[in-house]
Amino acid sequence: MDKRELEKLLHAVASGQTSPEEAAQKLRAEPYSDLGFAKVDHHRGIRQGVSEVIYGEGKTPSQMAAIIKSMVSADQERILVTRISEAAANELKALVMPGLDGLEFAYHEPPRLVTIGAMPEPDGIGPIAVCCGGTSDLYAAEEAAITAEMLGNEVIRLYDVGVSGLHRLLSNYDALGSARVVVAVAGMEGALASVVGGLVSCPVIAVPTSVGYGASFGGISALLAMLNSCASGVSVVNIDNGFGAGYQASLINHLS
Amino acid sequence: MDKRELEKLLHAVASGQTSPEEAAQKLRAEPYSDLGFAKVDHHRGIRQGVSEVIYGEGKTPSQMAAIIKSMVSADQERILVTRISEAAANELKALVMPGLDGLEFAYHEPPRLVTIGAMPEPDGIGPIAVCCGGTSDLYAAEEAAITAEMLGNEVIRLYDVGVSGLHRLLSNYDALGSARVVVAVAGMEGALASVVGGLVSCPVIAVPTSVGYGASFGGISALLAMLNSCASGVSVVNIDNGFGAGYQASLINHLS
Amino acid sequence: MDKRELEKLLHAVASGQTSPEEAAQKLRAEPYSDLGFAKVDHHRGIRQGVSEVIYGEGKTPSQMAAIIKSMVSADQERILVTRISEAAANELKALVMPGLDGLEFAYHEPPRLVTIGAMPEPDGIGPIAVCCGGTSDLYAAEEAAITAEMLGNEVIRLYDVGVSGLHRLLSNYDALGSARVVVAVAGMEGALASVVGGLVSCPVIAVPTSVGYGASFGGISALLAMLNSCASGVSVVNIDNGFGAGYQASLINHLS
Amino acid sequence: MDKRELEKLLHAVASGQTSPEEAAQKLRAEPYSDLGFAKVDHHRGIRQGVSEVIYGEGKTPSQMAAIIKSMVSADQERILVTRISEAAANELKALVMPGLDGLEFAYHEPPRLVTIGAMPEPDGIGPIAVCCGGTSDLYAAEEAAITAEMLGNEVIRLYDVGVSGLHRLLSNYDALGSARVVVAVAGMEGALASVVGGLVSCPVIAVPTSVGYGASFGGISALLAMLNSCASGVSVVNIDNGFGAGYQASLINHLS
Amino acid sequence: MDKRELEKLLHAVASGQTSPEEAAQKLRAEPYSDLGFAKVDHHRGIRQGVSEVIYGEGKTPSQMAAIIKSMVSADQERILVTRISEAAANELKALVMPGLDGLEFAYHEPPRLVTIGAMPEPDGIGPIAVCCGGTSDLYAAEEAAITAEMLGNEVIRLYDVGVSGLHRLLSNYDALGSARVVVAVAGMEGALASVVGGLVSCPVIAVPTSVGYGASFGGISALLAMLNSCASGVSVVNIDNGFGAGYQASLINHLS
Amino acid sequence: MDKRELEKLLHAVASGQTSPEEAAQKLRAEPYSDLGFAKVDHHRGIRQGVSEVIYGEGKTPSQMAAIIKSMVSADQERILVTRISEAAANELKALVMPGLDGLEFAYHEPPRLVTIGAMPEPDGIGPIAVCCGGTSDLYAAEEAAITAEMLGNEVIRLYDVGVSGLHRLLSNYDALGSARVVVAVAGMEGALASVVGGLVSCPVIAVPTSVGYGASFGGISALLAMLNSCASGVSVVNIDNGFGAGYQASLINHLS
Amino acid sequence: MDKRELEKLLHAVASGQTSPEEAAQKLRAEPYSDLGFAKVDHHRGIRQGVSEVIYGEGKTPSQMAAIIKSMVSADQERILVTRISEAAANELKALVMPGLDGLEFAYHEPPRLVTIGAMPEPDGIGPIAVCCGGTSDLYAAEEAAITAEMLGNEVIRLYDVGVSGLHRLLSNYDALGSARVVVAVAGMEGALASVVGGLVSCPVIAVPTSVGYGASFGGISALLAMLNSCASGVSVVNIDNGFGAGYQASLINHLS
Amino acid sequence: MDKRELEKLLHAVASGQTSPEEAAQKLRAEPYSDLGFAKVDHHRGIRQGVSEVIYGEGKTPSQMAAIIKSMVSADQERILVTRISEAAANELKALVMPGLDGLEFAYHEPPRLVTIGAMPEPDGIGPIAVCCGGTSDLYAAEEAAITAEMLGNEVIRLYDVGVSGLHRLLSNYDALGSARVVVAVAGMEGALASVVGGLVSCPVIAVPTSVGYGASFGGISALLAMLNSCASGVSVVNIDNGFGAGYQASLINHLS
Repeated sequence: MDKRELEKLLHAVASGQTSPEEAAQKLRAEPYSDLGFAKVDHHRGIRQGVSEVIYGEGKTPSQMAAIIKSMVSADQERILVTRISEAAANELKALVMPGLDGLEFAYHEPPRLVTIGAMPEPDGIGPIAVCCGGTSDLYAAEEAAITAEMLGNEVIRLYDVGVSGLHRLLSNYDALGSARVVVAVAGMEGALASVVGGLVSCPVIAVPTSVGYGASFGGISALLAMLNSCASGVSVVNIDNGFGAGYQASLINHLS
Repeated sequence: MDKRELEKLLHAVASGQTSPEEAAQKLRAEPYSDLGFAKVDHHRGIRQGVSEVIYGEGKTPSQMAAIIKSMVSADQERILVTRISEAAANELKALVMPGLDGLEFAYHEPPRLVTIGAMPEPDGIGPIAVCCGGTSDLYAAEEAAITAEMLGNEVIRLYDVGVSGLHRLLSNYDALGSARVVVAVAGMEGALASVVGGLVSCPVIAVPTSVGYGASFGGISALLAMLNSCASGVSVVNIDNGFGAGYQASLINHLS
Repeated sequence: MDKRELEKLLHAVASGQTSPEEAAQKLRAEPYSDLGFAKVDHHRGIRQGVSEVIYGEGKTPSQMAAIIKSMVSADQERILVTRISEAAANELKALVMPGLDGLEFAYHEPPRLVTIGAMPEPDGIGPIAVCCGGTSDLYAAEEAAITAEMLGNEVIRLYDVGVSGLHRLLSNYDALGSARVVVAVAGMEGALASVVGGLVSCPVIAVPTSVGYGASFGGISALLAMLNSCASGVSVVNIDNGFGAGYQASLINHLS
Repeated sequence: MDKRELEKLLHAVASGQTSPEEAAQKLRAEPYSDLGFAKVDHHRGIRQGVSEVIYGEGKTPSQMAAIIKSMVSADQERILVTRISEAAANELKALVMPGLDGLEFAYHEPPRLVTIGAMPEPDGIGPIAVCCGGTSDLYAAEEAAITAEMLGNEVIRLYDVGVSGLHRLLSNYDALGSARVVVAVAGMEGALASVVGGLVSCPVIAVPTSVGYGASFGGISALLAMLNSCASGVSVVNIDNGFGAGYQASLINHLS
Repeated sequence: MDKRELEKLLHAVASGQTSPEEAAQKLRAEPYSDLGFAKVDHHRGIRQGVSEVIYGEGKTPSQMAAIIKSMVSADQERILVTRISEAAANELKALVMPGLDGLEFAYHEPPRLVTIGAMPEPDGIGPIAVCCGGTSDLYAAEEAAITAEMLGNEVIRLYDVGVSGLHRLLSNYDALGSARVVVAVAGMEGALASVVGGLVSCPVIAVPTSVGYGASFGGISALLAMLNSCASGVSVVNIDNGFGAGYQASLINHLS
Repeated sequence: MDKRELEKLLHAVASGQTSPEEAAQKLRAEPYSDLGFAKVDHHRGIRQGVSEVIYGEGKTPSQMAAIIKSMVSADQERILVTRISEAAANELKALVMPGLDGLEFAYHEPPRLVTIGAMPEPDGIGPIAVCCGGTSDLYAAEEAAITAEMLGNEVIRLYDVGVSGLHRLLSNYDALGSARVVVAVAGMEGALASVVGGLVSCPVIAVPTSVGYGASFGGISALLAMLNSCASGVSVVNIDNGFGAGYQASLINHLS
Repeated sequence: MDKRELEKLLHAVASGQTSPEEAAQKLRAEPYSDLGFAKVDHHRGIRQGVSEVIYGEGKTPSQMAAIIKSMVSADQERILVTRISEAAANELKALVMPGLDGLEFAYHEPPRLVTIGAMPEPDGIGPIAVCCGGTSDLYAAEEAAITAEMLGNEVIRLYDVGVSGLHRLLSNYDALGSARVVVAVAGMEGALASVVGGLVSCPVIAVPTSVGYGASFGGISALLAMLNSCASGVSVVNIDNGFGAGYQASLINHLS
Repeated sequence: MDKRELEKLLHAVASGQTSPEEAAQKLRAEPYSDLGFAKVDHHRGIRQGVSEVIYGEGKTPSQMAAIIKSMVSADQERILVTRISEAAANELKALVMPGLDGLEFAYHEPPRLVTIGAMPEPDGIGPIAVCCGGTSDLYAAEEAAITAEMLGNEVIRLYDVGVSGLHRLLSNYDALGSARVVVAVAGMEGALASVVGGLVSCPVIAVPTSVGYGASFGGISALLAMLNSCASGVSVVNIDNGFGAGYQASLINHLS
């Protein structure tokens, strides 16, 4: 049961269509498969055809394989695994291959993602622009971009447009201005979020990255800068959390 | 010239409709009134009829009065002043009264806001739910709520629904579920954002507050908790930045 | 001499049953074996039959072996070694095997524990519930659980019940409610402690974990959240200190 | 409905005694009075006759008065208000006096507490020892002590027994050893928790205080020391959170 | 003896023109007047006619008066007192007036400076541009500007040119580009330094201010952003240290 | 019983001269007067005739008066009260005057100290040099100097000898070199400790002060610098802890 | 187009020499080669013949090779690659060798730099002195020194002149005094910047290094010390940012 | 020239025995051998026969070898190298062996020290007690102990005497009380310094160690605790700086 369905169920209870008794039974019976080490939610995502996500960090390939099999057997068409090493991805592929029934399995190097199933046709309302300050921020920008694509969005990539060379950003103004949501990814001083936030009139989701050294303190510098942005319309996710930004941008882009 | 108009102008240049020459002239001639200590943008906001905002902290009443007069003379219908003490608001009222031409002037105590001009009819697409953990978080919640209302949104207030008494939150599930965007305001451990983020399927904008003592470190505890939310679809603004959350929620709610 | 016996001795002195002279002699003669690099207390634990604990970090296998031998020769039936790698455990096993006299030696992978001697029959008054937010927190949860079991408690495990999927937690409400003490283990935003603390009426011992990335700062985020819990009845141990939580829970559970 | 009753209700549902329908109705109808700015839980505490608690910080006297009246009208016999100034307490007294029906109203200066209703007869199982390092820590120690007394516990006070004069602590060993739970309150280097934790065999709840200067950083130094205690059986609450420690100690002391 | 003279003396010793004996005597006899609580250097500044500076914070008016009298009696023509309240300035004026012999005494409110003696004719090589992000940063910008003027520089002020409204900065490009050194003053996210650093080819001295709230942490956010600037040619002074930036800019501007 | 006497007693027990019984009796009977809120040690200090110290912060004048009376009645000749405001000192004087029997009572403004009893003749082995970086550090330097004097040491004061004007320090080299212990007091960047530590061959006790602004973070900057001193022979006390440095220096200076 | 040319272009627009139309075309057409992962600026540096810089961290050898080839094909004579391992440098050499047309390729071990092209004749106005505290700071000092040399400056190296042995610094006073700009590099307590800043009358650029352990916190200690320098004329770059200091020093040294 | 000799020289100048000319010549000619990467001071230590110290971290074996050779050729009898790995020590031994002329070369594993030359006969006035809290702190305790021994002190080792088992510390009271200086080494909560400081009447040098996990933050917890010690007579060195403590203790112990 996904959040949409959970909502529906609770609304039905509230309106009297469903008795609390039934609701309770459903809640107790259905919501997850208990694998012991994990309780897998069988919700079919935030819209039709959406992807399911596994946070790979700290899970063994066999744990991930068990979760994926449980998902596939619940007819999940697309699965995204984040923060997984190439070695683990290979091991995972070997473990789940037989059960994937022809679903594509791809490893994306810079953001260390596995996508299972083909990219969906974009059904988000407009494009999402993902821009980043430098080549080194690419890993987080790509995590945001691929996440957004897997969730059904068209993505415009504007990379290496840091504020110390404003002409690179300004000469991409048209692309930036056409976006419905912007994801701004930057490390070091994180000024990109403020400058972009001052140029566009749509929501900006800022992703601080851990790129930098010394007083960048693993992304704290960029994080603080983004939280203190003097531009309105900027909200922030965790350091290096490209996934979170892509997900939030997709949520916004699918609001009808 | 507001951001929308700036966008239009730059698109016009890009498409050849306007020559860069003309564009440059406009940019140089129009964008702001230079008051010496401030450069006031005469942009008419993010949509028709929107409010203009002045960040009151660190500005004297006479500086604010000068900015307001400049705005009103540029036909601004509604103005929001944030972070202003009651004393300063009274002084401000005395200074600008003659020039307000019948516009309402109201001081809102808990969030220390001045609104000039009547609340607009909501033209946002759906309601925005503003919920907060405890009575002490009210100041930030109201800053978000009134900001959103001034920007043309219907607001549902769900206050004192902290996670240590889940039934208070759950019994408001219907209201929460009806929102198009949720603003979650909490101090102390900031868990409200994660719990709300797990219950709804729309974007959540989280506002950490400086409520708490000891190891809450003036809101750092809540800020970190919100940035680390295990729920997807949560992005965060600065500590106590109710205005920023209300503004971002309004931006999202006006995306067509 | 364990803490109970030390207490008894000092009470005896205070009441006149034992002369300070005798007491001093006992204190000087008995309390520990001096191994040079370590002074091993020969106290028989907090109750009959309890386990002795060695903090493995920063000790070589041969140092641990010497300590264990000293304990076993003092008739210790059960020993717990925390924070020891599998390689070191194997080396340790080889070193102490001959002297263990048929005592079981087991390595527990996720929490990196060695238990020597069989699990005791639970003699704690009620069950201790150990719950954790996600699969990645398992290592700390298991450290708490096995510690509690080794100290004579029945343990109920409720894993992967993070607050972003409340139904997983709520559908385990019965188990949670039956506990005499709850250990709540969570990383990232650490909200589990507050939510659990709001649901149960028994003491909650919270364990922040270092699970997370970016602004989780190695567990600081969860630690601060737990210290600031808006729920009463929650106290906190160090980051990743599953052992400490299991020990404290056992102390409470054995209070008659 | 207090947490115990909530538990009972949910058990009843789980066992079939109560239908979820009834349970839901109760949950929706009963749990709190909605005062607009606050939702007052009418739970009768953790046991028969227990006190209700209001966190006074950031609440106006009239808000507190409204909450107290709502509680008294729900037959609450005893109310504790924490973190309230003497001025606010006087104002509060004037506001609630008529409705208190002969209940005692007392202001306790060092910990800035108001108690309404007489101290209950202790029904906790044994004494709780509250000890503190220095005279300056008294405010937090008294907050813990009075909280525990209001919740039905006998309290032994051992003040100014800091570790730099061990004989002061050791000469109170008997009192310390007789306690069922110890609350250890200390600022500066917070060593008291470790030393006490090494002397007793019952649970220790440690309260870091903001006493100190310079590198005590408002209690961080003591907080970190207590979290890192080398003694087992120590768990920690927030800086200056005497209330939380007294509450947790009472919970433990009432476990049968 | 100022630093230049000290240099000359030591060069003279190195080259044999002056014997170390003489040099030592000079060093011991001349460098300062010992007022007991302070040792006043009688160096005549970094060039002919330069100002002497007193850091006012933590000095009483009478201490400052004694220092000023000692300076004036050593023929100092111009004195700058930083970080002094208006009340202290008035008291100071009363104390030193008789001894000032017609020197101007002026209090500058926003930066809380006293200047004694008339502004010198600029003898720096080119103009110094001082720009700041918002009206609230004015106090630090003016400290830099007046310091630079007192040290003999022409100053161009560009205030309220924050990066969230790029057109305000870009439309002042000519003025910015004409500067020999730029002082960039900003609070909040401090992005101004990077953007300016990317636009000009002269050295930029960045001054983080304590303007902001919440996660600006009293200027840490801006400080970190400036230290991590992705633009080359930016170096940073302490938070709110307008004086230091003006002094460094003047040093650079007087290098022939 | 002071620490020396405690030592003697314990040695006597260890060597058999005193029975543990007697020792225990002495320990239980003698060590302090219990005033309720405080337990006053009646130790006569670290040598004959030494001063007793009361930490004034957070104690009321009447609490201090009670402690002083208890000390004087135990024949204490000299008492030092640290961190006490002038107002509190006056109140204290009025309270204790009758009982002081002609002992001098003096308030020392910069360090906010009260001394009761005349300064003793120095019986420390050599002089202690107290040097500080600037006029603003005087309060901490004087706290160290007067403490050392009250404990029987000759003190050489070298103030305003900060490293940015090395000649001021170097021209006092003789005085510095004659010291048996040096106390180096500095705020801001705290470099004085390293430079002094490189010039002398005796122990240096470094006192970081909270003097500075912005990134001095209330003394953290100086504290860290002193802990990281590249000079050997430097150890550090808490920020602004002039008393601690004076006490430690005196301990060292009295070692025979 | 480099910053100088950008400046000229914008001045030309401002003065009417160039139409904004032309300017816009140039800006859009010329400024960079888009390599996909990077946008390479073809600006010819800050003066005739200057070096181009690539920040090597986080770039693969093939990415760097592509950037270098693009630069060389745009007639860049000299290229500096910072923060590159020896292995990566060797790989890079193999990749770009054929296209370098006889340009020198050198790897500099301590600072992990690659220089392509011969060192230019110094055309800066005076020497730049680079001094560092200890042998361990050499890597950052050499990064500054070689950067300055590649940008056309004469460099004087004064290494291992830490403040704990002042005679090493003072006996190099002549060299220090002859410099037009000083770069002061130090870890640990970072006092070198203040001492040097007090000795010279030219601008000092301070580089904190991550040298140290414990409370040096990876360079924070030195960074804070340098930001709080009591000497005027000191500005600071990021921890270990030798490149930034060398670049800023060169900018200053080339100001005519 | 060591610090003693430097002192003598400067005194001689001050008293007229030596002319500044001669002094300057000596200073310029003698103080160090310039090895390029290092300037080796040829001072013969703080007393007759003392050891010279090399900080090994960040130096290559060949750099260390060059320094050692330079020292040995200046007749240094004993050399201590700190923070050197076993591999580097072996390499170093091979490099310097021929030049050591029969001097002993020993590697000490726990503290990673090399000592060259035999331990001297203790000529310090009394014993130095080095005590540490747990087995894991041994590395820092041994660094202090061996340093003190190499500098001519008798050392008493009291290891594993942490405060959670007070009897282990108290039963070593005689040894502790016999010391002239105590070095207290502890990680985790660092309470040992306060407890020891309360038991002895001689100076205590406290060494926080990085032992611990989670909220010990690499030694910050212990460092803060020690700086905030409620016991007088405690001063602190950097985290893990056993060398610094041993050196300071030796300085104190050699004061006649």
